[in-house]
Amino acid sequence: SSTFDSTEHPHRRFNALSGEWVLVSPHRSKRPWQGQQEETEQDQRPAYDPTCYLCPGNVRVGGEVNPQYTDTFVFNNDFGALTPDVPTGGINEGGLLRAEAESGVCRVICFSPRHDLTLPQMTTPAIRNVVDLWVEEFTTLGARPDINYVQIFENKGPMMGCSNPHPHGQIWAQRTVPGEPAKETVQQLAYFQEYGRTLLSDYLKIELEQKERVVIENEHFVVLVPFWAVWPFETIVIARRPVQDVTQLTPDERDALADILRRLTIRYDNLFSISFPYSAGLHQRPTDGQEHPEWHLHMHFFPPLLRSATVRKFMVGYEMLGDPQRDITPEFSAGRLREQSEVHYKAAQ
Amino acid sequence: SSTFDSTEHPHRRFNALSGEWVLVSPHRSKRPWQGQQEETEQDQRPAYDPTCYLCPGNVRVGGEVNPQYTDTFVFNNDFGALTPDVPTGGINEGGLLRAEAESGVCRVICFSPRHDLTLPQMTTPAIRNVVDLWVEEFTTLGARPDINYVQIFENKGPMMGCSNPHPHGQIWAQRTVPGEPAKETVQQLAYFQEYGRTLLSDYLKIELEQKERVVIENEHFVVLVPFWAVWPFETIVIARRPVQDVTQLTPDERDALADILRRLTIRYDNLFSISFPYSAGLHQRPTDGQEHPEWHLHMHFFPPLLRSATVRKFMVGYEMLGDPQRDITPEFSAGRLREQSEVHYKAAQ
Ligand SMILES: O=P(O)(O)O[C@H]1O[C@H](CO)[C@@H](O)[C@H](O)[C@H]1O
Ligand SMILES: O=P(O)(O)O[C@H]1O[C@H](CO)[C@@H](O)[C@H](O)[C@H]1O
Repeated sequence: SSTFDSTEHPHRRFNALSGEWVLVSPHRSKRPWQGQQEETEQDQRPAYDPTCYLCPGNVRVGGEVNPQYTDTFVFNNDFGALTPDVPTGGINEGGLLRAEAESGVCRVICFSPRHDLTLPQMTTPAIRNVVDLWVEEFTTLGARPDINYVQIFENKGPMMGCSNPHPHGQIWAQRTVPGEPAKETVQQLAYFQEYGRTLLSDYLKIELEQKERVVIENEHFVVLVPFWAVWPFETIVIARRPVQDVTQLTPDERDALADILRRLTIRYDNLFSISFPYSAGLHQRPTDGQEHPEWHLHMHFFPPLLRSATVRKFMVGYEMLGDPQRDITPEFSAGRLREQSEVHYKAAQ
Repeated sequence: SSTFDSTEHPHRRFNALSGEWVLVSPHRSKRPWQGQQEETEQDQRPAYDPTCYLCPGNVRVGGEVNPQYTDTFVFNNDFGALTPDVPTGGINEGGLLRAEAESGVCRVICFSPRHDLTLPQMTTPAIRNVVDLWVEEFTTLGARPDINYVQIFENKGPMMGCSNPHPHGQIWAQRTVPGEPAKETVQQLAYFQEYGRTLLSDYLKIELEQKERVVIENEHFVVLVPFWAVWPFETIVIARRPVQDVTQLTPDERDALADILRRLTIRYDNLFSISFPYSAGLHQRPTDGQEHPEWHLHMHFFPPLLRSATVRKFMVGYEMLGDPQRDITPEFSAGRLREQSEVHYKAAQ
């Protein structure tokens, strides 16, 4: 055909939130795969594992004993990448060798005392407890003068570098604003200064009209596969109200966030009938003491799987040296996620 | 201690070439690893594999028959992510949903007719043939008015998404300049405009004085672990002469590039006594018809392994949402690579 068709022709898409591009190759989704196959674990775990350093009552590497917690539990990472007491200083050789001391804190959040659960297997009120803890942690850490950014995230599954299946997430909070939220600040600020509305409000409006990338909605949140998604089944959870951070969420909105996270992660698990691996995390305003009205709270989900439980997308050569690249279109992925049931495949068995 | 020490304290390092930062956590290298272990393959392959679509004389998926090539062989990828004949066009919804048709060509380069070899097991003259092919391809593709960037790269090993062990690399050449070389253009241009010398010339000078990150040298190239390395054993191969692309290399320089690639990849294999996985690729000037005197030819090696043949670094949660992060310091990694022999462990057995 001689007119451009985004379901057929290679093209680049612009990430309005980060200012970067992704190469989309829709025609390529049919190529055969003879490469590495991932293992699928038989995910049979006990409710309590005496060797797990996250289970209630167990001893951690540092010698501390976990309390007999009944919903969530948070502590400082025994091997944190960031530590609070770092002498200031740095290196600068002609602007070419530059380093700066960085201080911060790394926290671990257990989502549940149950070793055998994951978010999609938890109840909405139990996930609401996790949301409440995020709010508490963001409040406390964000109030510290030495913390200007709080990154809340979860790595799920061994494929995503997670070394313990006990349901948990992390928080890395630090003095400087990391690159990804810094890029999003630039883009959101430019938009807000031009239009007086947040970039994601206007983006969400278009997506809700077009509908083809929307996966699920509730009263306060929308999940969609962003137009510029890099990972095959990447999604973004967007707050309908343009709030800057989780502390501004009303109790109803916190419930709604718990609801949408449960429904999204169930759909993910159902897609290939496995415990679906991903890295996910909230992006919120820097805690640098400024208001940041340009910031619009959202959560990214980056799952690595492409075609099945055993075939993942590799972000390698071209992607590391050039631009991220994807084969199936975001519209196709959104359709696949929309088709899924919201009854977890294990509960349905 | 109360003074900043980059071998001990968490810090951020600036990537002068890309303008981005990496978080370095030297104190963290001692944490225990209980996560995913990679498989190490017994890498016993025949010199010719009748089922391999890259071996001489075999039939490819598209039905074409490979010639009985004796050194290198190049062809258009049967499932290329980029294709030449794409109708122009795009999408633009309020600057928020933006797409542009992209055209280009994807090529596959077989490094050798021998199915059982890899670069470190090839002779220097055989690697020189690969260098010559890179020059030819860069010349031909770069001369096309519809090609403004030529990305030459190799994905080695199943861990890097490589689906066929036959020694080969790829070229993706396209209309627009991808994000990574675009960032490097910005940084190199700013430096060149200020100092009248290439950024990498001055950087190389400092590294050759300090020596601690240098791995190997020959008359025309230096390999070092960059001050801002993200991957545990990442290296950069820098031309001593500030040339913009491979076509400017003299015959001696081409030989020297082959020599240094052989020696570097042998050291990589020897590090953990395995066929060392990586993605590697050349970064050169855009082929947009401009001279780009700011550009300085170099090659990146991005290997995923961290502690052993089975434990890799995962660039996941924090890295995807914040900044790349590393545990061991670039200086430590350079030392480990310097210690290695230049006799391949298989040849030594
Ligand atoms: O082209 P190949 O070898 O089939 O595929 C590999 O390299 C490509 C370019 O880096 C990536 O897009 C793919 O994810 C990877 O599996
Ligand atoms: O902190 P963990 O779970 O030990 O480690 C995991 O998450 C970190 C933060 O994304 C990454 O830096 C590690 O590479 C990954 O294995």
